[in-house]
Amino acid sequence: MRLSSLTDYAVVLLSAAARHCGGLARMNATRLAEETGVPLPTAQKLVSRLAAAGLIDSTRGTGGGIRLSRPPATITLADIIEAVEGPIAMTACVDAGHHDCGIAGNCRVKPHWNAVNRAVRGALAGVTLATLAAEAAAPEMMKVEA
Amino acid sequence: MRLSSLTDYAVVLLSAAARHCGGLARMNATRLAEETGVPLPTAQKLVSRLAAAGLIDSTRGTGGGIRLSRPPATITLADIIEAVEGPIAMTACVDAGHHDCGIAGNCRVKPHWNAVNRAVRGALAGVTLATLAAEAAAPEMMKVEA
Repeated sequence: MRLSSLTDYAVVLLSAAARHCGGLARMNATRLAEETGVPLPTAQKLVSRLAAAGLIDSTRGTGGGIRLSRPPATITLADIIEAVEGPIAMTACVDAGHHDCGIAGNCRVKPHWNAVNRAVRGALAGVTLATLAAEAAAPEMMKVEA
Repeated sequence: MRLSSLTDYAVVLLSAAARHCGGLARMNATRLAEETGVPLPTAQKLVSRLAAAGLIDSTRGTGGGIRLSRPPATITLADIIEAVEGPIAMTACVDAGHHDCGIAGNCRVKPHWNAVNRAVRGALAGVTLATLAAEAAAPEMMKVEA
């Protein structure tokens, strides 16, 4: 039950953007990639996808770059996951027209997944980019320092 | 952000077991597999894993079979996922000694994932096997009948 690594990198990039003037100053995608360690082609792919989803706006040319479309406290982890992966769904069977499960036609659990997906989405919608971008001491670092 | 198909099948099997006398009567794994459409080798693999996790108990021989270890209202979706996939974690970087992310060493988001995982686990712990096993009209069926 993992996020794709692309989604993970999207969170890393957006968090880095959010730390620069609350994400509202224009940033160069190359610089964000360097700062975070996300490979540049991946960063460029994510810029397209996050811009298409309306989470960032991106302009080319002198003075261009990317910035968050709205303040980090109003962008949630659910928004980011959906921008990269599409609707939050624990199982493939709830996607219209997409069935890679051999028993989907006869499954008595299937009617319940939408409620589960809504509950998980609710949990992820409670985590904002502002929180994810905040500095926090890693537990491992605390142990080493103790 | 999908469950593995093995976890999905575990939910299907346990829900079927729960529907038979609340899961407290012993059931034959072969019959459960036939009833649900889960392939028998997969069902057998799951019986081992779910028994090891303490969600079912399984005995061999005449009068043997499997049954839930406790009532379906006290088994949650979080329990089932953890029995099959291990601890609920959105990213691989929180697993001790397991890093397949190129930027884990320099990641400023990493300290936040434990809180996210707890929030998602909380949502999944709110869904019980009793709920998942309950009969519900599938939205598609309702449309056809309307």
